[in-house]
Amino acid sequence: MVTDRLETPCIVVDANQMRCNIRLMAERIDSCGVALRPHAKTHKIPEIAKLQIEAGAAGITVAKLSEADVMEAAGIRDIFIAYPVVDPVKLEKVARMSSRIRLIVGVDSLEGASRISAAALRGGVRIAVRLEVDTGLRRTGAPYEAAVELARRLNGMEGLDFRGIYTFRGNVLNGRPTLEVEEAGAEEGRLMVALAERIRAEGVEVKDVSIGSTPTAPYAAKVPGVTEVRPGTYVFNDRMQAALGTCGLAECAAKVRVTLVSRPYPDLIVVDGGSKTFATDVQPDTRPLQLQGFGYIEELPHAVFERMSEEHGMIRVRPEDVLEVGDVLHIVPNHVCSTVNLHNNLVLLDEGRERVVPVAARGMLT
Amino acid sequence: MVTDRLETPCIVVDANQMRCNIRLMAERIDSCGVALRPHAKTHKIPEIAKLQIEAGAAGITVAKLSEADVMEAAGIRDIFIAYPVVDPVKLEKVARMSSRIRLIVGVDSLEGASRISAAALRGGVRIAVRLEVDTGLRRTGAPYEAAVELARRLNGMEGLDFRGIYTFRGNVLNGRPTLEVEEAGAEEGRLMVALAERIRAEGVEVKDVSIGSTPTAPYAAKVPGVTEVRPGTYVFNDRMQAALGTCGLAECAAKVRVTLVSRPYPDLIVVDGGSKTFATDVQPDTRPLQLQGFGYIEELPHAVFERMSEEHGMIRVRPEDVLEVGDVLHIVPNHVCSTVNLHNNLVLLDEGRERVVPVAARGMLT
Repeated sequence: MVTDRLETPCIVVDANQMRCNIRLMAERIDSCGVALRPHAKTHKIPEIAKLQIEAGAAGITVAKLSEADVMEAAGIRDIFIAYPVVDPVKLEKVARMSSRIRLIVGVDSLEGASRISAAALRGGVRIAVRLEVDTGLRRTGAPYEAAVELARRLNGMEGLDFRGIYTFRGNVLNGRPTLEVEEAGAEEGRLMVALAERIRAEGVEVKDVSIGSTPTAPYAAKVPGVTEVRPGTYVFNDRMQAALGTCGLAECAAKVRVTLVSRPYPDLIVVDGGSKTFATDVQPDTRPLQLQGFGYIEELPHAVFERMSEEHGMIRVRPEDVLEVGDVLHIVPNHVCSTVNLHNNLVLLDEGRERVVPVAARGMLT
Repeated sequence: MVTDRLETPCIVVDANQMRCNIRLMAERIDSCGVALRPHAKTHKIPEIAKLQIEAGAAGITVAKLSEADVMEAAGIRDIFIAYPVVDPVKLEKVARMSSRIRLIVGVDSLEGASRISAAALRGGVRIAVRLEVDTGLRRTGAPYEAAVELARRLNGMEGLDFRGIYTFRGNVLNGRPTLEVEEAGAEEGRLMVALAERIRAEGVEVKDVSIGSTPTAPYAAKVPGVTEVRPGTYVFNDRMQAALGTCGLAECAAKVRVTLVSRPYPDLIVVDGGSKTFATDVQPDTRPLQLQGFGYIEELPHAVFERMSEEHGMIRVRPEDVLEVGDVLHIVPNHVCSTVNLHNNLVLLDEGRERVVPVAARGMLT
């Protein structure tokens, strides 16, 4: 196997499966007549963002200015920073970037909007904004009931080009995490389209109604009035998505390659990947996914990845399992986005060749 | 304040407090007549490892070969890789490194020892090893009862220089996590010294008995027969250590600086640091620490850092708290080692100056 000489731990990506994932989502969304703007936070790699655009994406989504910086430097010309940017230093950069590429930023408060307006006026540009709306997740986003009035205020603000509204909910239905992703996507779409209509009734133009995540995007895209969806994880998929029914485990393109370093007891193996290699943000045994352990071990489907310390992964095996120090295993992580973020590089396996690709936009000091 | 122009999120380190922490541990361990070999996994920064050595450390500990590589390149000449290295490619590098500096590697199985022996013979060197022993944590480490026989076998193996034994337990007493760190350190010491005696009774020389963590090191160092302790976290300290009574919150030198980006509801603020900025390996409300939330917010001691998504930190505040979009907050993370590992750089604040220092040994592809 070509990867036998790779030092572990590392993330190996099946490039063919990744391209399949990119194509499949592009086709599903295109068939709904809706724009696809993939979230690049999953991979943080310009080369992969470009594959998504070549497959039909209208542009990309990022979570922070530093990601936009890296993507712009690599030649990407249409970027949505789906996050309320409020820091004056960052907004100065946003203003400059707005004069070079098609850039949209998130906003969810009047104070935030004033700061964007000030930066636009100082920079002599107009900054395109979308109003973020909270549809139940209680993180950023203006409260749903306050959104109409806020949109009206944003629309009149100097230096701002009010584009429309967006939300992020993931797999939430009636305010709770759910496995019913089809209903969740439809509900998200209905909520946001209804809100867009209420804003339009105030005489404010709403061009963009942008919603959706990997599990919900294909369903959200079917709701008339939705203009864009922003899935991210689908590029690699992960164990969480498999549990949601979004993909099979075989469609997970990114796996963490580890080496068995110790088998101190017949029922315990230890691999050289712990919490500095696998993200711990999606904890085992939490509702509604109820994932058992921290990952799916391809070579040991029955084993349970029970515990981690920083560089140790403790896996419960059967005493009769034939496993030795030095064995190499491949683990589908629970959450690939935050796992990729732990690594400086991915190893792309493409038609028998392996290539180390930097995760260029990770961990930036901005 | 000098840090006002730093873009967030970032980790800021009070260099003065860090030097105090380094000096205090060095003095406490030195007064016991025991060697201090700090674990560099906490900071992964050669400059800080050198401060530890200048303060009296006998050498450093690392968790992986890639950390040893970076530390050696920066001029550090005495390194213990406290991990069973089993991969032949890595062992070839270990053999070469052994010819250049004083290097010791961990081993916990006969198969691992054979691999080290083979690499030593191929490289024409002797590789110094310490036998890792499991004293209750059930991760790497030979089972306690098997250690005497394994030490005897290692001692006779060609190419190996058997140095002694080591363990890691942290704050464990009678097999359970505990707040009783003094008793935990003493128990750890007694277990390992007793084992060393049993190995010596077989005619095997045991030079090194290396144990201890930040909470237990000062107590472990008092046990006669212990030769070395390996605390790591103390260089910065964190909320977990404060909960263990190892330090006060005021002795935590590293804080995550974040910006308040949204206050959608009176009782909720959102900051620009989530699970890609704060590690989630030490979860809230778990025994025995029972930490409330994901960090201690210096400016809002009563607030609860309740939830995170990748770039969002959701903090529960009081409706009457005076807080605005754009406010800057400083958060002591639950676990600083895994939090530093998420960042490419630290910002060192030293006598009014700020300096960006790369976390040089993080996220390496080895």
